[in-house]
Amino acid sequence: APEFDPTEHPHRRYNPLLGEHILVSPHRTKRPWLGQVDPPATEKLQEYDPKCYLCPGNSRSSGEVLPQYTETLTFPNDFPAILDGPLPAAPAPPHPLLTAEPVQGGCDVVIFHPRHDLTLALLTVGEIEKIIVEWTRIYVKRGMHPEVKYVQIFENKGAIMGCSNPHPHGQVWSLSSIPQIPATELSNLVKYSLGAPADPPSGAPLGDQGKPCMLCEYAHFERGAKERVVFEEGPWVAIVPWWAVWPFEVMLVPTNRHITSLLDLTPDERNTFAKALSRLTKKYDNLFRCSFAYSMGIHQRPTPTQLDEAGEAAHLHLHFDPPLLRSASVRKFLVGFELMAEAQRDLTPEQAAKRLRELPEVHYLDEES
Amino acid sequence: APEFDPTEHPHRRYNPLLGEHILVSPHRTKRPWLGQVDPPATEKLQEYDPKCYLCPGNSRSSGEVLPQYTETLTFPNDFPAILDGPLPAAPAPPHPLLTAEPVQGGCDVVIFHPRHDLTLALLTVGEIEKIIVEWTRIYVKRGMHPEVKYVQIFENKGAIMGCSNPHPHGQVWSLSSIPQIPATELSNLVKYSLGAPADPPSGAPLGDQGKPCMLCEYAHFERGAKERVVFEEGPWVAIVPWWAVWPFEVMLVPTNRHITSLLDLTPDERNTFAKALSRLTKKYDNLFRCSFAYSMGIHQRPTPTQLDEAGEAAHLHLHFDPPLLRSASVRKFLVGFELMAEAQRDLTPEQAAKRLRELPEVHYLDEES
Ligand SMILES: O=P(O)(O)O[C@H]1O[C@H](CO)[C@@H](O)[C@H](O)[C@H]1O
Ligand SMILES: O=P(O)(O)O[C@H]1O[C@H](CO)[C@@H](O)[C@H](O)[C@H]1O
Repeated sequence: APEFDPTEHPHRRYNPLLGEHILVSPHRTKRPWLGQVDPPATEKLQEYDPKCYLCPGNSRSSGEVLPQYTETLTFPNDFPAILDGPLPAAPAPPHPLLTAEPVQGGCDVVIFHPRHDLTLALLTVGEIEKIIVEWTRIYVKRGMHPEVKYVQIFENKGAIMGCSNPHPHGQVWSLSSIPQIPATELSNLVKYSLGAPADPPSGAPLGDQGKPCMLCEYAHFERGAKERVVFEEGPWVAIVPWWAVWPFEVMLVPTNRHITSLLDLTPDERNTFAKALSRLTKKYDNLFRCSFAYSMGIHQRPTPTQLDEAGEAAHLHLHFDPPLLRSASVRKFLVGFELMAEAQRDLTPEQAAKRLRELPEVHYLDEES
Repeated sequence: APEFDPTEHPHRRYNPLLGEHILVSPHRTKRPWLGQVDPPATEKLQEYDPKCYLCPGNSRSSGEVLPQYTETLTFPNDFPAILDGPLPAAPAPPHPLLTAEPVQGGCDVVIFHPRHDLTLALLTVGEIEKIIVEWTRIYVKRGMHPEVKYVQIFENKGAIMGCSNPHPHGQVWSLSSIPQIPATELSNLVKYSLGAPADPPSGAPLGDQGKPCMLCEYAHFERGAKERVVFEEGPWVAIVPWWAVWPFEVMLVPTNRHITSLLDLTPDERNTFAKALSRLTKKYDNLFRCSFAYSMGIHQRPTPTQLDEAGEAAHLHLHFDPPLLRSASVRKFLVGFELMAEAQRDLTPEQAAKRLRELPEVHYLDEES
């Protein structure tokens, strides 16, 4: 009988962070693509766009004028998905199967830089460090509000990821309840911390109160195994997770110790974090020589004041979900089977990690010609 | 204090079928859209396309020539995501957190009709009935294979949903394990059947062995409440579910009795099912006067031979997940917050149901001019 070959044989992998399976069909990249081709993100933008509502000195949608800011800047979203409280209580459910609860909080926009034509991949490490400091500030400011139970920092980058303005920016949504996905992750992290061996098999550091941490253990193991590692930067490791769904999905995790949130980072850890973000986004742009689209999100302790079991079990990490698969204009569609049955990917995480690992880290726009 | 208004106040709803929450931010449709605009699906196609690998008499990717078929036709996918077994067993996991199992089975393509330019919305009820018979035949044929544990019938319609050929067709993927989403649904259906009151509050029919069925109960309640009903067709009801994620998501369910699979349908139920599919897809096309994109999937008893608790608890239903939100070219992007935190929608399910309900059922291309 032939041996099992993960690059040839369809198989399912398990994601212990979400408790979900994913189908891997690596031989599938061989099929020709006759479907939708998106415009590649290769257009050169102006440094300042008079029509952009995020450029310094321009008017926001609300009419308010932006200052002549010179570094990262945060302001409340003019079209927030979540509103300030207090909200009236929801009426009794019309049927036990039909329940609803009000959600309050707020939405912020974090402009990364005054220049319209830059992205994380083109900022200096120093400029990225300022963004990390700003994320930390907002996490604390919003998270200290008594009604806020969760702060989600994220970035939609690129038109094909629903971003409506290329000016470099991210968002922060703060809510009065812990959303579905981080709640699931936290509950699995708590379960692991209670049930895992007290001597982590990989020799990873233990979490708070000496409890094992799934992410510390996982990242530590990957660091040794190397196959799915894109790069290491100080204590940070960039991994294509064993259970990655998106073609070039990456998880960025600190591995030196259990770190529950941005607030725990030392200046040194912040600096290597900025370097890691710079390296990863440069590699991404170099993959298909375009401004690489993705959704990025930071998962951590829900708020600085959540001191319970779930708060302690949280381990800071970032997810990057990029849609491109074959080229700057051909993406992976997570549709049909994926929406109705199970996530499915067309190349193995190991193949994706190898490609990213071997890419240069000088941005293609900065190459000497 | 003001009263809670679901069309003004952000809130979360609960989906008992998947055990997940979704964030509803109805005031958000007021924001202007400056993001990606997709090409609208309004192009007129030819009845026969010499380059289409699904048109009668043309060559498939494998080189094989398609017969001069005159109605629905099924053949194995030339680039299947799942392969015939037997496959070698997966090696022992390199770490307890990194597990994998081989998956075998097969993938079929179901051509709906020889005409290249038609879609479900433009077929006759008789032609749709033939597709239902064909789906049933494949469900039985694939599902009777001893290695197959699950058969997923689905359709990706439209280029923006990753469909690479407009020739009307769907797919059937058969697998040696039950995929993530149906497995979750089944486990919630089983839990409900064991824990719910023996006298269903809405007066819905009981399931097999006199057990309550969540979907029977839910659909029965919605039929009475009317607010989220798009239309009724004999025993079938088309609902925008209380927990819908996609802007105009619809669930199609039979409500007369507990029906576990396509195989249980009487000729009459099959006929009204075809009528319901025709009405729904016509309304969809009329919403933005374009060939409306969606992913559709059939959930039912995993295979005809799964006779255990989960097999009995299954209730046949279809999900339609369409991406368009504002017009034929502006879709909802489920990105950033949705990928990192929680599904989020911009109009209430009740608002979506009202718009669909009020749409004419004569296809816009068939209007008298
Ligand atoms: O099989 P197709 O139509 O070529 O491919 C399409 O449907 C599949 C099943 O939903 C997806 O995995 C692919 O990403 C999508 O492009
Ligand atoms: O807030 P934006 O950038 O206008 O909107 C974008 O991000 C949001 C949060 O991920 C999504 O809900 C929207 O669908 C998307 O278009």
